[in-house]
Amino acid sequence: MIAEIVSTGDEVLTGAVADSNAAYIAARLYEIGIPVGRHVCVGDDLERLTAVLRESADRADVAVVTGGLGPTVDDITAMAAARAAGEELQANSTARAYIEEFFKRFNRPLSDSDARQAEMPASARPILNPVGTAPGFTMVMGGCRFYFLPGVPFEMRRMMGDNVIVELQAQCADDKTQGFYREKRLSLFGLPEAHVNERLARLTDSLGDVKLGMLAEFPVIHVKLVAQGPDPEGMEARIEKAAAEVREWVGAYVFSESGQTMEEVVGGLLTAHSARLALAESCTGGLIAHRVTNVAGSSDYFVFSAVTYANAAKINLLGVSLDTIESHGAVSEETAREMAEGVRRVAGADYGLSVSGIAGPGGGSPEKPVGMVCIGLCGPGHSFARRYAFPFENRMANKRIFAETALDRLRRTLIGAGDIQDKMQGET
Amino acid sequence: MIAEIVSTGDEVLTGAVADSNAAYIAARLYEIGIPVGRHVCVGDDLERLTAVLRESADRADVAVVTGGLGPTVDDITAMAAARAAGEELQANSTARAYIEEFFKRFNRPLSDSDARQAEMPASARPILNPVGTAPGFTMVMGGCRFYFLPGVPFEMRRMMGDNVIVELQAQCADDKTQGFYREKRLSLFGLPEAHVNERLARLTDSLGDVKLGMLAEFPVIHVKLVAQGPDPEGMEARIEKAAAEVREWVGAYVFSESGQTMEEVVGGLLTAHSARLALAESCTGGLIAHRVTNVAGSSDYFVFSAVTYANAAKINLLGVSLDTIESHGAVSEETAREMAEGVRRVAGADYGLSVSGIAGPGGGSPEKPVGMVCIGLCGPGHSFARRYAFPFENRMANKRIFAETALDRLRRTLIGAGDIQDKMQGET
Repeated sequence: MIAEIVSTGDEVLTGAVADSNAAYIAARLYEIGIPVGRHVCVGDDLERLTAVLRESADRADVAVVTGGLGPTVDDITAMAAARAAGEELQANSTARAYIEEFFKRFNRPLSDSDARQAEMPASARPILNPVGTAPGFTMVMGGCRFYFLPGVPFEMRRMMGDNVIVELQAQCADDKTQGFYREKRLSLFGLPEAHVNERLARLTDSLGDVKLGMLAEFPVIHVKLVAQGPDPEGMEARIEKAAAEVREWVGAYVFSESGQTMEEVVGGLLTAHSARLALAESCTGGLIAHRVTNVAGSSDYFVFSAVTYANAAKINLLGVSLDTIESHGAVSEETAREMAEGVRRVAGADYGLSVSGIAGPGGGSPEKPVGMVCIGLCGPGHSFARRYAFPFENRMANKRIFAETALDRLRRTLIGAGDIQDKMQGET
Repeated sequence: MIAEIVSTGDEVLTGAVADSNAAYIAARLYEIGIPVGRHVCVGDDLERLTAVLRESADRADVAVVTGGLGPTVDDITAMAAARAAGEELQANSTARAYIEEFFKRFNRPLSDSDARQAEMPASARPILNPVGTAPGFTMVMGGCRFYFLPGVPFEMRRMMGDNVIVELQAQCADDKTQGFYREKRLSLFGLPEAHVNERLARLTDSLGDVKLGMLAEFPVIHVKLVAQGPDPEGMEARIEKAAAEVREWVGAYVFSESGQTMEEVVGGLLTAHSARLALAESCTGGLIAHRVTNVAGSSDYFVFSAVTYANAAKINLLGVSLDTIESHGAVSEETAREMAEGVRRVAGADYGLSVSGIAGPGGGSPEKPVGMVCIGLCGPGHSFARRYAFPFENRMANKRIFAETALDRLRRTLIGAGDIQDKMQGET
């Protein structure tokens, strides 16, 4: 069985946005053992899209097509599918009823262009969209089963998981020629990519048929272990053996082996400790709080963050002493420590975590350059502050690595591990 | 002239990384007036890649191929190009000398696999790589000029700019049938996509050769006006005329015509008013502060954000009255108003902006469902609070649209415009 992925839309074709949908769909298909032959991307061009669909129908067994199902004049995917299949486009009554229901629920009038989203090729079966108005659909052309999904990533992902993967898995179970794919991800923070690479280079011979790959998602590095082949027997055991070898070399930097983000790992640890967290952020500007609160249920352990950009806010709201700021500067271990202690006190939390640094592009000095950050952590019976230096001039890069360093510092405290090693500094 | 883009590599095909190269190349080609017909992505598979190259040779005038030029066994692009063209693969002496020089410069021994990177089809002309070891090359197959570049993004970008774009521009200058491309973007917030579409649908006839497109970047919608053709004369004037027509129908929702984000626009307005901003965020969890502080120089106008997730924090730190929370709830116009007033007072800011709502997935009730948010704004001489309802169940979607609504509310106040229209509610 071989799959193809088709992305439609001028915004992808012209480079206005990168095609993240194709990567997501490919990863999901590989997970259930369906190899992908190619991705194709075309614009909102009826003739070209029709041609691309016909080609996939000739070549592939499964095709997932995204985009062009919305209510606008650019949305021509259903028409192209109908032409490619030589069918009429007609309003599907199930899809129509669902769209009407969606609009009724939110007291919105149903316009003609909204209603047009229920139109699909005559032989198509609708795939309802639980999180948006544009339904998808599935149909067979040539020897290929097509799935048409919306281009909005969270709608596509939901329908991919709820419908497409479930259907395809049922089919794969019957197909004995099918290839299998197993993957494990170890997520690392605190070691530069080149160092991870060097440490793991010596492993490539000893891992057997398990393939080792690295994926940098700044500032995190995922080490991927992949086994692929016709026989799923023992694949997981071989991957686990390889993971043990990887841990031997970089284990101190692994924060997750389950795909969890740093904020999810920290949230789980805070829950396990029944501990409540307060934050005092300066240069990260709310990013740490934003990440912590992206985790559903974070209100159980997250109390408060003070984004104290101005010094007056640090003094008046967190009780940092003017003297400390004047003698050591706003970006100093001393100020970071007082911020952490202050926010822990005012919020009545178990842990106070603080960040003060220079994200850039301006504001640096020879003594305190852009990329320098001080992190404070105050918890039951201890208070910690430390300075780190990173080599980035980019504001977003610094905000990200400062936030990750702070959360990792808290994680290490909660699991009783030491501080991030000195290698990290200035090298990531 | 029509271009195609081919990306190779298992890491892109399997979804381990998103194909950002294709987006970059497409954008560069459009800039010089070369439209792209399609992108194709294939893995490290000699047979499939050869087939894809032959197809592009038949269909396109220009093709840019990335990836598979390195020293490893997976790097099969040169071999595929030779097969597709029916040529021999041979070591190119210029490329070989350049690679030798590169290794000498860094005192590295030249291995056989490194040297293999100088091999290319007999008719190919090398494109030297100033920032890496793998040279690219260019050749003609069928009616199509191919450019083969490395997949490492910064190497590809450098060679794309230094060589490919320069060569193609020279060709375009001689080609009188060549298209030019001009684009203007109007960024809107506050009107659902279907409504923007309906309002603008009537314009499609009156815009002449200016093409109207829409790009949703949730929760913002960009209306794109594009002129393309052999004559650049008057293109900008025609786009401006079209923009005036677009403004007539949706002008009240346009917050930027320069590509600026909402936080950049708000930052510019605060600077112009010499006004200082403080935030009180509940359900947005720091996202508004994060966005405001993504703008370099935001420390000039941004003072403080209190991310008060817990009610105790709202009461103790912002002075919201317990009575207000008990009678009206934490998610209410009354609480939002007191949060805005409180943070303005404690931070000594000119404007206090607050958000309290239910981002989900849990925590909703029939009376206060997920997607409901109250926004408070307190400024010199006025205090405002209002409830909005959005139809999303997704936590991230709600955080995003709540943050955008709050910033837009501030923007509207700063320019003296009224509140976002009622259309917005429950419809985006």
